[in-house]
Amino acid sequence: MPAGDLYTFTPVKGATKAETDKKRATHRECQLIQVKNTWCCVESGQEIPTTWNEDQVVVSQAKIGETTTESGVSWTVKAPIYFRYKVIETQNLLDPNNMTLLYGHVFESQEVEVYQKKIQKRLVVVDMAVEKLYGSKIRKYFETNNVTYKILALETTEETKSMELVLTILEEVQKFGIDRRNEPIIAIGGGVCLDVVGLAASLYRRRTPYIRVPTTLLSYVDASVGAKNGVNFCNCKNKLGTYVPPAATFLDRSFIQTVPRRHISNGLGEILKMALMKHKGLFELLEQHGKFLLDTKFQSRNGLANHGDAALTTTRIAIQTMLEELAPNLWEDELERLVDYGHVISPELEMKVLPALMHGEAVNIDMAFMTYVSYESGFITVEEKRRTIQCMRTLELPVWHKDCTLPLIKRALGERFKHSGGKLRLPLPTGLGTAEIFNDLKEETMKRAYENWTEECQELST
Amino acid sequence: MPAGDLYTFTPVKGATKAETDKKRATHRECQLIQVKNTWCCVESGQEIPTTWNEDQVVVSQAKIGETTTESGVSWTVKAPIYFRYKVIETQNLLDPNNMTLLYGHVFESQEVEVYQKKIQKRLVVVDMAVEKLYGSKIRKYFETNNVTYKILALETTEETKSMELVLTILEEVQKFGIDRRNEPIIAIGGGVCLDVVGLAASLYRRRTPYIRVPTTLLSYVDASVGAKNGVNFCNCKNKLGTYVPPAATFLDRSFIQTVPRRHISNGLGEILKMALMKHKGLFELLEQHGKFLLDTKFQSRNGLANHGDAALTTTRIAIQTMLEELAPNLWEDELERLVDYGHVISPELEMKVLPALMHGEAVNIDMAFMTYVSYESGFITVEEKRRTIQCMRTLELPVWHKDCTLPLIKRALGERFKHSGGKLRLPLPTGLGTAEIFNDLKEETMKRAYENWTEECQELST
Repeated sequence: MPAGDLYTFTPVKGATKAETDKKRATHRECQLIQVKNTWCCVESGQEIPTTWNEDQVVVSQAKIGETTTESGVSWTVKAPIYFRYKVIETQNLLDPNNMTLLYGHVFESQEVEVYQKKIQKRLVVVDMAVEKLYGSKIRKYFETNNVTYKILALETTEETKSMELVLTILEEVQKFGIDRRNEPIIAIGGGVCLDVVGLAASLYRRRTPYIRVPTTLLSYVDASVGAKNGVNFCNCKNKLGTYVPPAATFLDRSFIQTVPRRHISNGLGEILKMALMKHKGLFELLEQHGKFLLDTKFQSRNGLANHGDAALTTTRIAIQTMLEELAPNLWEDELERLVDYGHVISPELEMKVLPALMHGEAVNIDMAFMTYVSYESGFITVEEKRRTIQCMRTLELPVWHKDCTLPLIKRALGERFKHSGGKLRLPLPTGLGTAEIFNDLKEETMKRAYENWTEECQELST
Repeated sequence: MPAGDLYTFTPVKGATKAETDKKRATHRECQLIQVKNTWCCVESGQEIPTTWNEDQVVVSQAKIGETTTESGVSWTVKAPIYFRYKVIETQNLLDPNNMTLLYGHVFESQEVEVYQKKIQKRLVVVDMAVEKLYGSKIRKYFETNNVTYKILALETTEETKSMELVLTILEEVQKFGIDRRNEPIIAIGGGVCLDVVGLAASLYRRRTPYIRVPTTLLSYVDASVGAKNGVNFCNCKNKLGTYVPPAATFLDRSFIQTVPRRHISNGLGEILKMALMKHKGLFELLEQHGKFLLDTKFQSRNGLANHGDAALTTTRIAIQTMLEELAPNLWEDELERLVDYGHVISPELEMKVLPALMHGEAVNIDMAFMTYVSYESGFITVEEKRRTIQCMRTLELPVWHKDCTLPLIKRALGERFKHSGGKLRLPLPTGLGTAEIFNDLKEETMKRAYENWTEECQELST
């Protein structure tokens, strides 16, 4: 949201700005100051009454502007909300001795000691894969720690990702009963599971804390770090949702060892996005160790000595770079976002071919095409283009798709334009690990990019 | 949310705080700075590289803390979201020459000129009473202004206030198609209508702007000013919802002339709450002009000369004082709230006797009892108690209820304790128009208050 000033006006039909301005009579802006338990408006610049004892006074960041015109008073409220959440790497999350799952979200360690004195309650929502692979381990964790728990195992797919599923979770929350401030709902699973639980928790009593435990590579590096949640609606992806971050996300790479190889590639697509946009070192890691990461499923303890830290470093940089881009723009008020790379054409493509392409695969096809756009625009060299496409192939990601046609691309760019406030705001690489946002894309450049892309990459897609 | 520092830790079972602290290795805190289109972490205290051109640099208020321990890295994200909204008094809102309904939410007057150049679209959700009384006027407004519009008239009662109704609205939003940033959904109606539309809008594409136009006195002074919305769920009032303020609220007192007399009293209950908590002047206005306001339904133009401004002044102070209390605590993170006065016992009472009592009536019964608690605690004088109860009667509000028994009161206070983080946090008047929050309430005081209340007020309730 732009900062702007707190000036308000009542527009009058046919009136110019100057005329509207003239109609403004008086304007004052207030700070909000709490004395004892009462909030008072104190005009900016005005001194705080000396009769107020300073240590009883709290000053809010919220402001109220008040404009009086002949049609009445207009108030403008400007109030910040501070979100705070943790993203924690841990090992052996389900080891009953590891207290992270129970208390890792708590900010002050003194509070943990208070909590430990009473019986804790946790509602745990898991997807079917997690129930099957880790169900008994999860039960043992809570039983050993003497926690009253309920495990809710759900079929979480793109087809079931709906408000109905959210309401199913909410009914269980209501039945089970939790302390709305101190007993977070825990979600353990892939992106869909984390998304529906996040939405349910953000609705329950207008906000109940929740924990994200991603168990796939894609959710580990993507769904885990931001504030977004959502469900599909009327055949549209994530049409309904909120921006409420979890209390904490716990990252345990060992979950990834049970994920199929294609799903690892899927997650690598989003890691590559961050590499191409802002981290050359990450790109080089993927170039050199991509195959190893696929072969070992990010379990570096199985790996060769010289690959020892590849899994750790890759995921850590991916999280770090994601956080940098998401934290300043948690509610996506800023429309120019590097994290949108690979997400301009892919939504159209994904909806068209579902379920043939996984999310990270569609994203990669979008990025492959955009690499050619960038090259044709003179932003990257032929060698940078070659290395990018080669790296994608190393990660076993598709670099071209027959349904990603020029008309589809044009339609997708049209949608982008419409939903981005009348500008294209296209993130494009300007090197390996650097990027900028561009608003101009010539029809001619796009056409040439498409032709060269098809010529060079079509045969690589099998 | 408490500010706190950005320190994170991984708690280990059985470890004391000191031992946990020892396990911390390194900690750094980063500011986020945007250069061109990329966000970078710059450690606090570290200077911004001189190679960066200053006018390209944007500094975010968001911060990332990073703690490295032997179990891995923990990140702590602290990110503010700035909400901004307008509350505007206007006259003749539905006069086609009044542009407030179409553009009053816009912050920069230049933008209005841009919008006026294209055909606008508005989805308007109204309740049945509004459809019947103002439906044709609303249609004429949008037709005259050449706006593509759709009016959705809904049965909005406590019984239909559900997620199903929210989904009905959302399907219409999706079918109709609006620009998610520039074409707000408009709600015109009572509190239930404003609440369900607010929730629908806050879910659609994770946030779509909406406009509140309250048409009852209660929604004018209460639902109109804050961020809360919600629906009932599993027989619990407002169990699901979000805290997303509207883009703007437009206040037109003329709607109130079509509201039944009892509903005016209902709204006066919430106005009296603000008067008792923080504004003696407002209390005196209600004392002196309460009957006139009821008789004239807040349409001061019908009034006697010496009452000329009572309606305007009363509503204006009610809005102003509400905004002061809500703006610094938009997401209700602070549990000590004066606006909770009258809302401690009333939820239990309301659920028990529904639909016999209206919301403002139940609130008033709660406040009447608390007046006796305050008197028995020595916080107010006998004369202040007398004037308070007398004022309630002038406003034609019930001051006692047979179902508000001592066991019900105790149960309600128990709930309060549970949901307020283990403290009572009871707002109580300490005079006419001043109040404080108290945590102690002796059983004996409560019992005496109840007995005296019943003795003095029982016969006044007919």
